[in-house]
Amino acid sequence: MIEFAAIREQCRTLPTGDAGAEAAVRARQTTLTKPPGSLGRLEDLVAWLACWQHRAMPRLDRVAILVFAGNHGVTGQGVSPYPPEVTAQMVGNFAAGGAAINQIAKAAGATLRVVPLSLEMPTADFTDKPAMSPQEFCAAVATGYDAVAPDTDLLCLGEMGIGNTTAAAALAAALFGGTGSDWAGRGTGLDDAGMARKQSVIDRGLARHACMISDPLAAAACLGGRELAAIFGATLAARQHNIPVLLDGFVCTAAAAPLACLIPGGLDHAVIAHVSAEAGHRRLVAALHKQALLDLGMRLGEASGAAVAVPVLRAGLACHQGMASFAEAGVSDQA
Amino acid sequence: MIEFAAIREQCRTLPTGDAGAEAAVRARQTTLTKPPGSLGRLEDLVAWLACWQHRAMPRLDRVAILVFAGNHGVTGQGVSPYPPEVTAQMVGNFAAGGAAINQIAKAAGATLRVVPLSLEMPTADFTDKPAMSPQEFCAAVATGYDAVAPDTDLLCLGEMGIGNTTAAAALAAALFGGTGSDWAGRGTGLDDAGMARKQSVIDRGLARHACMISDPLAAAACLGGRELAAIFGATLAARQHNIPVLLDGFVCTAAAAPLACLIPGGLDHAVIAHVSAEAGHRRLVAALHKQALLDLGMRLGEASGAAVAVPVLRAGLACHQGMASFAEAGVSDQA
Repeated sequence: MIEFAAIREQCRTLPTGDAGAEAAVRARQTTLTKPPGSLGRLEDLVAWLACWQHRAMPRLDRVAILVFAGNHGVTGQGVSPYPPEVTAQMVGNFAAGGAAINQIAKAAGATLRVVPLSLEMPTADFTDKPAMSPQEFCAAVATGYDAVAPDTDLLCLGEMGIGNTTAAAALAAALFGGTGSDWAGRGTGLDDAGMARKQSVIDRGLARHACMISDPLAAAACLGGRELAAIFGATLAARQHNIPVLLDGFVCTAAAAPLACLIPGGLDHAVIAHVSAEAGHRRLVAALHKQALLDLGMRLGEASGAAVAVPVLRAGLACHQGMASFAEAGVSDQA
Repeated sequence: MIEFAAIREQCRTLPTGDAGAEAAVRARQTTLTKPPGSLGRLEDLVAWLACWQHRAMPRLDRVAILVFAGNHGVTGQGVSPYPPEVTAQMVGNFAAGGAAINQIAKAAGATLRVVPLSLEMPTADFTDKPAMSPQEFCAAVATGYDAVAPDTDLLCLGEMGIGNTTAAAALAAALFGGTGSDWAGRGTGLDDAGMARKQSVIDRGLARHACMISDPLAAAACLGGRELAAIFGATLAARQHNIPVLLDGFVCTAAAAPLACLIPGGLDHAVIAHVSAEAGHRRLVAALHKQALLDLGMRLGEASGAAVAVPVLRAGLACHQGMASFAEAGVSDQA
């Protein structure tokens, strides 16, 4: 059983990236048959993979997608147009191979594992009491931590949980300031009345736990959810195992965000793969001083945005591995 | 031999998309296990593929990349940091499999064909005379037209040609207004003095051919290049053969742009895959009322931006083909 104090201690001593491996990538890039920097972000991504894999020639042989699922007591407040039963139904759909992420994972050459967290026991309604006790929170963090295979080359994280954009918005507000109206979005498709309810629910949650939530871990326990805690744990495990991470949309980014609040650079091993159409994500990406890789108007979760970005990394790596140098190809370098 | 008049006539009678196929895609999308619209642009892309393939269930079995290469007399004005010999050297690099597009094409599951156009005979310096005669222009259009295999499911277009961002900027200015300073970018890496030269060269070209270039085809002949003309021809052929097109960056988009100027909706079968870091591209995308799919800071050409986008389409199509419906999966639809 991990405890708050143990998590905090681990965050104080996070492994750093490998600047030498990154420099080796940058040096090789200058020799390849293209104008300097002309592959743009593809070049940056290869350097980032090298830095966090601690390998001068990074690999994408083992790309893993982890999707965590949880249920939320706050759904009792009418914050989603879908009933909470859909979380377990969608876990069944993942197992049967019928969801979007099943198709995208296959197309991306990635393995998919779905981890449901006590779906039969929703978190408490955070307008009333903390969503999770510290023990419940730490158990979910540990589940996420342990789900990461240490030999993974790239980890894509995602979630499923009816009501969890409400939890994510409340957590984001606790970590970065603002209110329900700043962070709430329409989730799976709320109407205007639902949006007003959702904003109010978030504001009541923030008020209810005001004396606790200046601490990022306490905020995640009071306002988050089990799948969010598991994503936090998986992000931490990835850092410990030298695994770069692709974060998915709003919920996933909010779940990992406490790591950036606990230690500067805590999310340097993570790239936000896709900026969600869910309202709060663009604000959250900016608050983390990140730039998302893709902007395709997606707002599904399930790690779908992360998985869509995997081939972009593969393209960058293929160039880095396979391109000829100016000397090899007999191509004149700049005059 | 195609002639100006024949091209113009063909453009007046372009095939339209298949609204029924598009509607069939939209209808199926509402049944799949995801909130409505939550796959964002992925859903739009599948509908677009269906519309222009004229197939209710589109395919991406035969994805073809065509890269056209040409040389430009305007390089004599010092508008590129690379010598013009690099065009032929890079064609050799493509043939040997050492360029970026070779790696990205392979990763995207696409075939690659490179078509050099009279590299030993550069176009004329457009500050002095028309880059091409109408006959030369039409011959290059025909080469591009004939390079398109009618059974292609998706066509990615790109180019290689030292000096061709100068030609593209001049053509864009002729088609959409503005001057060298509005449209010129640093190309493969021009310094400030080179940029000033390039802008002046464009302005001199626009002045030299002012009485001709209100006609889009004449503008493309006077200011463009053989590889640009071939891209125009290939884009036209794709429309005739019901093949959706992914356009690459600035040069490629400028090359295809006359089609949009000749007839409203002339580029509706084309998506701009990636907005280049080359300065003029964002302006050109806006002038065409398009929204690029990706924004990864690339500025290489070679169809690299188009090829990087192919897996995004594959992901969208995989979802459309493979996802379960709410009924099949036993998932509750919205309350």
